[in-house]
Amino acid sequence: MGLLFRSLLQHTQQVSGRSLVRRAYSSASSDITVNAMVYGSYGKPSEVLRMHSYKLPALTSDTVHVRFLASPINPADINQVQGVYPLKPPFEQLGEGEKVAVGGNEGVAEVIAVGDNVKNLKVGDQVVMARSGYGTWRTHAAGPEADFQPLPASTNTSLIQKATITVNPCTAYRMLKDFVQLKPGDYVIQNGGNSAVGQAVIQIAKAWGINTVNVVRNRPEIEQLRQELKELGATHVVTDEELGTHEMRSKMKEWFGGKPPLLGLNCVGGKSATEMARYLGHNGQYVTYGAMARAPLAIPASMLIFKNFSFHGFWMTRWTDNHTNEERYEMLKDLVELMDKGQLREPRWTEVEWTEESMKQAADGGIQGFTQGKQVCFPTKA
Amino acid sequence: MGLLFRSLLQHTQQVSGRSLVRRAYSSASSDITVNAMVYGSYGKPSEVLRMHSYKLPALTSDTVHVRFLASPINPADINQVQGVYPLKPPFEQLGEGEKVAVGGNEGVAEVIAVGDNVKNLKVGDQVVMARSGYGTWRTHAAGPEADFQPLPASTNTSLIQKATITVNPCTAYRMLKDFVQLKPGDYVIQNGGNSAVGQAVIQIAKAWGINTVNVVRNRPEIEQLRQELKELGATHVVTDEELGTHEMRSKMKEWFGGKPPLLGLNCVGGKSATEMARYLGHNGQYVTYGAMARAPLAIPASMLIFKNFSFHGFWMTRWTDNHTNEERYEMLKDLVELMDKGQLREPRWTEVEWTEESMKQAADGGIQGFTQGKQVCFPTKA
Repeated sequence: MGLLFRSLLQHTQQVSGRSLVRRAYSSASSDITVNAMVYGSYGKPSEVLRMHSYKLPALTSDTVHVRFLASPINPADINQVQGVYPLKPPFEQLGEGEKVAVGGNEGVAEVIAVGDNVKNLKVGDQVVMARSGYGTWRTHAAGPEADFQPLPASTNTSLIQKATITVNPCTAYRMLKDFVQLKPGDYVIQNGGNSAVGQAVIQIAKAWGINTVNVVRNRPEIEQLRQELKELGATHVVTDEELGTHEMRSKMKEWFGGKPPLLGLNCVGGKSATEMARYLGHNGQYVTYGAMARAPLAIPASMLIFKNFSFHGFWMTRWTDNHTNEERYEMLKDLVELMDKGQLREPRWTEVEWTEESMKQAADGGIQGFTQGKQVCFPTKA
Repeated sequence: MGLLFRSLLQHTQQVSGRSLVRRAYSSASSDITVNAMVYGSYGKPSEVLRMHSYKLPALTSDTVHVRFLASPINPADINQVQGVYPLKPPFEQLGEGEKVAVGGNEGVAEVIAVGDNVKNLKVGDQVVMARSGYGTWRTHAAGPEADFQPLPASTNTSLIQKATITVNPCTAYRMLKDFVQLKPGDYVIQNGGNSAVGQAVIQIAKAWGINTVNVVRNRPEIEQLRQELKELGATHVVTDEELGTHEMRSKMKEWFGGKPPLLGLNCVGGKSATEMARYLGHNGQYVTYGAMARAPLAIPASMLIFKNFSFHGFWMTRWTDNHTNEERYEMLKDLVELMDKGQLREPRWTEVEWTEESMKQAADGGIQGFTQGKQVCFPTKA
């Protein structure tokens, strides 16, 4: 903790400047050499990942070419390389050698060439991947326009925000929308309040007039963290140690004023996740989207039978695969609007150099790196 | 186990015979002495329960008088006496002495007198309680017609079936209807397959063309139990010990033929309940209505996030309080029809003598009595 939110404004201008775009486009497309972080088998990221080069397929009338501006290294990407993630990437023949999968699932790319029959994309458009499992740790990609989804127009949204919009902010957005019909003044309780999703929950809820109780792990600099999360819009910040105390029960009662939260969001699991559930009101919905404590959620039968709680899971990948681009676009528009207005800030982030060594190191270290900010690489940074 | 299903036909005729009805009605109503098993404070049933006598309030133009034909002693009734059940009964002034609550929540009664303004009930009607928490361990009661709900007409339904219809068969019925839209040929998996609700699930599912996998605790007479449950309509019977084995996984796969159950019903909790959840298909709904193992349900995050299971609770009391008499009547009609056709049999039961001593003993012992059959008393048996 203690990292400040940094602006990427200068950097954004540098990598998405017109001159760069034109240079990429003016080279004959089949001459483009793709550099990609790939793996031929599952295993420890630093052992199986390698930088691989191949020629980008020539443009056809039905395909587009894109170059990647920024791609995060997410924990799930690393689980995917390890082979322990339920979403398995396709292994393809990319140039010479064995079949490989390209790492990464999220990122923002720029359209640099379009075939004659392509209708909804044009050169210069910024796009995200239309489906999960599309390798984004590469400099370029070629494919049908259906592979890509244009981002809504924005006036004040940074490249980092665009590169990291489809996982964390979308997860927060959906969890706040899809389980309980929340009204301004309602309360939501969540743990992992300082995680990327947790911070998005705080900000989106705040923008919608919804109060949040945010549980975080206790730590020496807890007061600083409380302050930071409150600046983001958190109504209350509570430590996991305070959670079960008599004092906290009285406090919460006072905060809720007879209207306890009907939505709980859990990315931790274990004992404190059960403790958090106790604060929900009757008919509460409890949504799990992570398991940082690596312990199952223990649910006393009375919560199910007498309090009528329901326990659900949320996985952005499934939502994306089960919904249309139009539905997703609506959400992206709402999110970009919040970003434009400064109501949803750029996440903490650190740059990972686009080299084999840096990428391998980032992938190995990335699993623990929750609070050090999102790791982002810039594959076509000049 | 090993108890046979016994017919109550003879007994039914005896206690609901016309002569008895007329005699009760011909006595002036305010002269009726009520005997009731009451408690003035919560505690060990045999210590707080006592037989109490008071005069039945005189009939008014808006009230009815009923006499109780049969009332079960359910585990929840006993929890209520102990003060550990979330549904608290009203403590009222009934004749002399301290305020008391009348024990029991379920039972069948017969209308023996109606006031002039009573529209929907007539003398001789058999009724169940319209709401939970109505003391049924008494000989008579007086109240507005809204307190009672007439049973649908039946041709072949025993008094025991009527007395025990509103908790167990209704619980089974709702759980099979309200969480997953089941079609003939679908599978449901449940534990506590030999409990009263479990047996109702087996039979109702069978009548609706739905297959059941029924988990039971292993025991010396397991083959006999398998046979009994299969005679009731169970598709498969599996022991808790078999549940986690590699062999059972293969078997289930074969049974399900690529269409695993989307509904799991749990009244046990603990490890084997988690094990059972593993057999559900993606988007499975898992409903908990009991906790015989007295251990919480441990849910791995992957079930929630990647398999998209939802975990719910079911409590018949809440359903009844949140639905209209008309909705309940629809269900009772369906259930009586199944009973009339012999598709939903009388549960195992044993008679508890209507004396203070017997009732106290039954209440003390009743918590463990799951497999010895339902305990039923007959408060106005001649």
